[in-house]
Amino acid sequence: SRRGLPEAILAEGKTPDETATLAVAAVETSGRALVTRASPAHAEAVADALPNCDIDRNARAKTIVACESDYEAPDIDATVGVVTGGTSDAEAAGEAAVVLEQMGVSVELLEDVGVAHLGRVLDHLDLLREVDVLIVAAGREGALPTVVAGLVDTPVIGLPISTGYGHGGNGEAALLGMIQSCTVLSVVNTDAGYIAGSQAGLIARAVAAARDE
Amino acid sequence: SRRGLPEAILAEGKTPDETATLAVAAVETSGRALVTRASPAHAEAVADALPNCDIDRNARAKTIVACESDYEAPDIDATVGVVTGGTSDAEAAGEAAVVLEQMGVSVELLEDVGVAHLGRVLDHLDLLREVDVLIVAAGREGALPTVVAGLVDTPVIGLPISTGYGHGGNGEAALLGMIQSCTVLSVVNTDAGYIAGSQAGLIARAVAAARDE
Amino acid sequence: SRRGLPEAILAEGKTPDETATLAVAAVETSGRALVTRASPAHAEAVADALPNCDIDRNARAKTIVACESDYEAPDIDATVGVVTGGTSDAEAAGEAAVVLEQMGVSVELLEDVGVAHLGRVLDHLDLLREVDVLIVAAGREGALPTVVAGLVDTPVIGLPISTGYGHGGNGEAALLGMIQSCTVLSVVNTDAGYIAGSQAGLIARAVAAARDE
Amino acid sequence: SRRGLPEAILAEGKTPDETATLAVAAVETSGRALVTRASPAHAEAVADALPNCDIDRNARAKTIVACESDYEAPDIDATVGVVTGGTSDAEAAGEAAVVLEQMGVSVELLEDVGVAHLGRVLDHLDLLREVDVLIVAAGREGALPTVVAGLVDTPVIGLPISTGYGHGGNGEAALLGMIQSCTVLSVVNTDAGYIAGSQAGLIARAVAAARDE
Amino acid sequence: SRRGLPEAILAEGKTPDETATLAVAAVETSGRALVTRASPAHAEAVADALPNCDIDRNARAKTIVACESDYEAPDIDATVGVVTGGTSDAEAAGEAAVVLEQMGVSVELLEDVGVAHLGRVLDHLDLLREVDVLIVAAGREGALPTVVAGLVDTPVIGLPISTGYGHGGNGEAALLGMIQSCTVLSVVNTDAGYIAGSQAGLIARAVAAARDE
Amino acid sequence: SRRGLPEAILAEGKTPDETATLAVAAVETSGRALVTRASPAHAEAVADALPNCDIDRNARAKTIVACESDYEAPDIDATVGVVTGGTSDAEAAGEAAVVLEQMGVSVELLEDVGVAHLGRVLDHLDLLREVDVLIVAAGREGALPTVVAGLVDTPVIGLPISTGYGHGGNGEAALLGMIQSCTVLSVVNTDAGYIAGSQAGLIARAVAAARDE
Amino acid sequence: SRRGLPEAILAEGKTPDETATLAVAAVETSGRALVTRASPAHAEAVADALPNCDIDRNARAKTIVACESDYEAPDIDATVGVVTGGTSDAEAAGEAAVVLEQMGVSVELLEDVGVAHLGRVLDHLDLLREVDVLIVAAGREGALPTVVAGLVDTPVIGLPISTGYGHGGNGEAALLGMIQSCTVLSVVNTDAGYIAGSQAGLIARAVAAARDE
Amino acid sequence: SRRGLPEAILAEGKTPDETATLAVAAVETSGRALVTRASPAHAEAVADALPNCDIDRNARAKTIVACESDYEAPDIDATVGVVTGGTSDAEAAGEAAVVLEQMGVSVELLEDVGVAHLGRVLDHLDLLREVDVLIVAAGREGALPTVVAGLVDTPVIGLPISTGYGHGGNGEAALLGMIQSCTVLSVVNTDAGYIAGSQAGLIARAVAAARDE
Ligand SMILES: Nc1ncnc2c1ncn2[C@@H]1O[C@H](COP(=O)(O)O)[C@@H](O)[C@H]1O
Ligand SMILES: Nc1ncnc2c1ncn2[C@@H]1O[C@H](COP(=O)(O)O)[C@@H](O)[C@H]1O
Ligand SMILES: Nc1ncnc2c1ncn2[C@@H]1O[C@H](COP(=O)(O)O)[C@@H](O)[C@H]1O
Ligand SMILES: Nc1ncnc2c1ncn2[C@@H]1O[C@H](COP(=O)(O)O)[C@@H](O)[C@H]1O
Ligand SMILES: [Mg+2]
Ligand SMILES: [Mg+2]
Ligand SMILES: [Mg+2]
Ligand SMILES: [Mg+2]
Ligand SMILES: [Mg+2]
Ligand SMILES: [Mg+2]
Ligand SMILES: [Mg+2]
Ligand SMILES: [Mg+2]
Repeated sequence: SRRGLPEAILAEGKTPDETATLAVAAVETSGRALVTRASPAHAEAVADALPNCDIDRNARAKTIVACESDYEAPDIDATVGVVTGGTSDAEAAGEAAVVLEQMGVSVELLEDVGVAHLGRVLDHLDLLREVDVLIVAAGREGALPTVVAGLVDTPVIGLPISTGYGHGGNGEAALLGMIQSCTVLSVVNTDAGYIAGSQAGLIARAVAAARDE
Repeated sequence: SRRGLPEAILAEGKTPDETATLAVAAVETSGRALVTRASPAHAEAVADALPNCDIDRNARAKTIVACESDYEAPDIDATVGVVTGGTSDAEAAGEAAVVLEQMGVSVELLEDVGVAHLGRVLDHLDLLREVDVLIVAAGREGALPTVVAGLVDTPVIGLPISTGYGHGGNGEAALLGMIQSCTVLSVVNTDAGYIAGSQAGLIARAVAAARDE
Repeated sequence: SRRGLPEAILAEGKTPDETATLAVAAVETSGRALVTRASPAHAEAVADALPNCDIDRNARAKTIVACESDYEAPDIDATVGVVTGGTSDAEAAGEAAVVLEQMGVSVELLEDVGVAHLGRVLDHLDLLREVDVLIVAAGREGALPTVVAGLVDTPVIGLPISTGYGHGGNGEAALLGMIQSCTVLSVVNTDAGYIAGSQAGLIARAVAAARDE
Repeated sequence: SRRGLPEAILAEGKTPDETATLAVAAVETSGRALVTRASPAHAEAVADALPNCDIDRNARAKTIVACESDYEAPDIDATVGVVTGGTSDAEAAGEAAVVLEQMGVSVELLEDVGVAHLGRVLDHLDLLREVDVLIVAAGREGALPTVVAGLVDTPVIGLPISTGYGHGGNGEAALLGMIQSCTVLSVVNTDAGYIAGSQAGLIARAVAAARDE
Repeated sequence: SRRGLPEAILAEGKTPDETATLAVAAVETSGRALVTRASPAHAEAVADALPNCDIDRNARAKTIVACESDYEAPDIDATVGVVTGGTSDAEAAGEAAVVLEQMGVSVELLEDVGVAHLGRVLDHLDLLREVDVLIVAAGREGALPTVVAGLVDTPVIGLPISTGYGHGGNGEAALLGMIQSCTVLSVVNTDAGYIAGSQAGLIARAVAAARDE
Repeated sequence: SRRGLPEAILAEGKTPDETATLAVAAVETSGRALVTRASPAHAEAVADALPNCDIDRNARAKTIVACESDYEAPDIDATVGVVTGGTSDAEAAGEAAVVLEQMGVSVELLEDVGVAHLGRVLDHLDLLREVDVLIVAAGREGALPTVVAGLVDTPVIGLPISTGYGHGGNGEAALLGMIQSCTVLSVVNTDAGYIAGSQAGLIARAVAAARDE
Repeated sequence: SRRGLPEAILAEGKTPDETATLAVAAVETSGRALVTRASPAHAEAVADALPNCDIDRNARAKTIVACESDYEAPDIDATVGVVTGGTSDAEAAGEAAVVLEQMGVSVELLEDVGVAHLGRVLDHLDLLREVDVLIVAAGREGALPTVVAGLVDTPVIGLPISTGYGHGGNGEAALLGMIQSCTVLSVVNTDAGYIAGSQAGLIARAVAAARDE
Repeated sequence: SRRGLPEAILAEGKTPDETATLAVAAVETSGRALVTRASPAHAEAVADALPNCDIDRNARAKTIVACESDYEAPDIDATVGVVTGGTSDAEAAGEAAVVLEQMGVSVELLEDVGVAHLGRVLDHLDLLREVDVLIVAAGREGALPTVVAGLVDTPVIGLPISTGYGHGGNGEAALLGMIQSCTVLSVVNTDAGYIAGSQAGLIARAVAAARDE
């Protein structure tokens, strides 16, 4: 597949039938299908269409992975930390984690370390410093990646989340805050767990390749 | 004056002459004039028009205070902390401090404790907790008031600053971040040091009045 | 709890089950749970999960308070006035009032004193001047806090409400009007009754502490 | 001229020469030229090009009126009130007044009755109620036309002014506030004194025509 | 009622019960209730609550008028033209017409004279010139009031309509186009038929009063 | 050159020296250089650097054309009409005309036929219908291309112009109005005379090629 | 019909009944009706109302064409290429194709040649160069028309599609990208397949007319 | 220094004196100062204040590097490719390159490979694939990083540039296009060369560390 990235099927905006057809094609080509932003109806259609595949539905992350029984998963010698500020960040962070796992990258998940409770961030500094790349998801004002990036040398990818109501809600405050961050970050679009995971995976692959040299 | 607030003359958008005329009128009415957002030319015109007044020009805060020699300043038994993230915050924070001083409120200034250097914030927790009210100024992503408000019980007024370039620059990221803050804040408009100082002063007066009961 | 503020659970965006689980945990930790932006389904799930608690559902404010029978409510010697322009402001204003009551702060509610009927505002000047802090909620053009703040010395927190249709609807005109106000205000985000109540409560606590000195 | 409106030449964005050429043409056609948003350089060029005309330069309103000595001004039996909140509103309000005078409409000017000093508005209720139409100019939050329209039966045209800094500055808060007004208004664009004056003049003409029937 | 305007009840955002209660109160006070933006459910609740009133439901305009049998309608000797570009403009234009009728103003309705078929506009110039005031509703690019105002001396109130899809849809292109119009207009907010009708009615009343002098 | 389009050098944002260097290179490659958005300083530097070229400076369109004496201009058997609403449209319209002339396309220029004076549009219907393509430039509310496209079968390219002040100024109202037009148009970006001219030129070439078949 | 364009009925926002009535009228006038953005309910109502017509429902394009049996379709000797980046572009592209077919223009459809798979674009250069006009539809970042226009001399009309989530979703990134394109394009509004098809059709007619000369 | 990043002084918005003072302090602490967005006046003041340092002024990148003679530069065994679409991208791309060089990372610069000339991109695929990380700068529609990322497995950081005029100019189209990219990218704010370089440098350090294991 392109860039060693798992070619994903974005279910949102497609019918269950269209999604299932694309999943069957993906399994035929590569032995596996990865579906993102999938509703239960999408999951059912995919499972029905691929009776001989192992189906792994992650309801929180809204992903489906369908593998042929003899599918050989890749394995990359690198670790990405996925950090969230609160429960609203779980869906996109989970999507990122699934993409990374499908690339064969190890994932360390660290949840609910929101900026309102700084102690929890400080308690996990070792972990935040040991991984090769960090994805830091945060909604509302999106300050968490700014704070984390000020404490570690690890490259940080900010993942803004569309929580919050009122002005700047829907992820706008979080995205703007991350691209204006006074600490060094790169960012992806709001709720774009697939992009954050894929970009972290490409970096992890580069690190693992160097490890291998 | 209205609300016990020092009636201020906003020099920006007025000619030096217009400003001086308004300052003379203010001195006649109340024994004192406070001019904000004043250029050197405004300062000169005010000084020339009020040869018998004590003139206090604060170049960094762009304020002018002109007092008759027998002007009796008010005195309020309360303290406001004014915190900044960096040098770009100094102008608006200074404007807030001048307003507070003119109300007779004590000011504790704590500068350059940006969110990129969390240690400096943690070093001053005692001060942040002892004052009656906090004004926290920050530009770019504006995360500092969010972090401070998570660490103290003092009421925090967020003062967004129009630094930063690119998208969300000009204070937009900072303002949106503060009104979306996951810790409790109220905010004023970008660069509105006069409003932040006045609002903190009204709260300080309410606290001082309670102290007096 | 942090800052003496009642730790609240934001139900919106959570399932009834998730909300109930968090409410049970809150009761275990602190003897009480406060849930905001709760639908009837959230209320039912919380009540079912906490059969031994007193449940106080405020349908207009969309809040739920669940207390153990021996829960000892705090009591703060200060009063906050909560003013609304019309019926659309009742939900957020009510949310603010519930938060204040849970902090132990006295609340004076003054409703339907919209700027289109100035007489009603002028009739209540005494009340507006006697309280320690004012929350003033208004939708559409949001002029009410500007008018009130011009008439009193009490600190005013503007609470913009997302009523109105067409351009500037959804609270944008109200928020912009309040941060541009020619009288002194601080503001919170659109519909953010929880933040307005909490911020007013922190100020009320500072006043009450001074009263106690 | 079209609609009985004085055909105006908008100087802004034109060179002094281009403006003078258009003014000469206007005088030739109609005996008079009206130039708006004119700098001193525009004024000088127009005066030089029309040595035989009476030139009336209004520096505050940035208008120039050039008339042939035998020009017979129109006269309309109706009165428009032009109300401003503060000195920043004077330019656009003055432009509206000049347009009205050129249409032959009587103008009552009422200045500096800002919403922060409600007493001044209430003091002039009689005047506000006696005129045939009201133009109410206001910057920052633009609440003045909302308040005035709540007190009178006269039709009110809101004229937003681009004062204010920070978010919603540049007239955005004022314009949105006026189109969201909870009292009945129609509005014109920010700083559009020419349009406000012309529209009020068309209404005044309709009223005067009815008076004549 | 205030300003001689029919005090209207905005049903949108209220339950049928709340709406009916307010309608009963309005009938008690003034002999009549006017409800706008009313769904069929609102209409049914109002009719049930006022069994002794004459009920006039205008489904296209989404209005309800409930009158006591002895209610004496006002009568104003003036005419307002209400012009629309297409069928999407009918709801707001109809709302304006109902408000005018309730004020006792005569209404001339001219529909479907969109700017894409200029001939139809030119065919009705006489009517457009004879009325005292014009309301011109238009969606999408909103050019119709600009074109009409260039052809007549009657004062024109532009009423932007939220039709159109894509960028500038939702009435934004229409509103901006009307406030930028190169012919003289005043405007109201998108879809604000009630405001357009009320403002035209206030002007019509001023004209009728002059007719009476 | 690419697409048969005259490769143009955008002077804005480049120094005179950089611009001259690029112009020399263009002459060397193709016998001609076309420079757009050029100040007098750019023009001087280009002329100095190309002493043996014929230099054609169009000050109104801000273009420079430099040709070697033996440069053979192309010739295309098709005509584009370029229509403007007022003098502010002349710069971008002129830029479009220069690009077309450099492509060898005939240009019919029709100026100052603004929508406020419909008669002038109707007077030129024959011309508007005879050309192969129309570019219609308009600022402020940008209604002119909508009106023209309703009267002719010729393909119309709308060219929004950044005139106007206040909200929707700077070309926003014009651009949104054109993409929301209720008659059929395609558009280019605000002030993008080069793009409008090039696109019209590509269409003209397709027409001329068909003429040649 | 106007401009030789098939007068279309926009079903969206109309009831099935209203749509059917308009379709009957169109058939009576011209022998054919074209309905766009039609739901299945619209399709059913139209079919029921026109029992003697041939009905052609294109579910993907959401169009309905109803013809009398003796309707003589036009025929234009020109070809338009319609290119899409992905499946989300199919609806608007299909709508454009139906409009073109109704005008009698030949359509070459080239689907799923997204910018992420450049090879597919390069494979079809011949087709892209042979047609008379190109419509290129693309969502998300909308880069496809930019890339295509850099490779061909054919006039390109960019058709932005409202796919994508997060910031710039809903077609905003695509539209802005197309009007900022560094290659020459004209554009239509987001999802405006009808406008893209009609504009391409008008150009095709001009080309075909030249072919005929 | 924090994160192994060269602590940079942002000269923009600081006086030459303030900048020089900060540069002296930086040299004292770390043996080197890096100043970004520096005008010639800033450069002069820094050189004057540090007479014993080697001064390296990069006028195109607007950077200043001041080193003590015995300063030992770091060295990192990794390479970052910096790609630009045109000359307007040179400033920010140069700033990124300087930051990388100060971190000791090797830089491969590839300029003027804009999306309008795809051939130039395809010619350099080997280089684009060999480096460890890519920074791809682009203005106007910002399509270049999207195209590059579709061709390589290297992680790509998109750097939007504020070129372009009209709507979406000032980098907005470029930034939105990059965060909506249908190929995998992470992005930094418009013109943020310092952030792009620092983030690429952190990734390069992680790769080099792995190389070292
Ligand atoms: N959740 C997601 N967010 C963003 N892009 C995605 C997502 N899932 C899949 N994609 C991308 O979208 C492409 C599939 O798009 P489609 O052709 O609409 O299924 C994949 O190749 C991915 O590049
Ligand atoms: N209505 C509300 N508006 C804004 N913030 C709230 C609201 N209710 C609760 N919160 C805050 O959100 C936090 C809980 O967020 P969560 O972890 O998503 O339940 C609380 O600690 C409060 O700080
Ligand atoms: N200050 C102004 N604001 C808005 N429109 C104006 C102003 N002054 C003149 N106009 C209008 O602009 C037209 C003249 O525009 P121009 O052809 O650019 O001189 C006049 O006919 C008026 O309709
Ligand atoms: N060109 C730049 N763009 C963005 N951030 C920068 C730039 N140059 C320096 N910085 C950051 O701004 C901080 C210095 O800010 P200041 O205290 O205002 O000088 C540095 O530590 C960097 O993190
Ligand atoms: Mg870091
Ligand atoms: Mg706190
Ligand atoms: Mg007050
Ligand atoms: Mg009134
Ligand atoms: Mg007119
Ligand atoms: Mg046409
Ligand atoms: Mg091309
Ligand atoms: Mg790639």
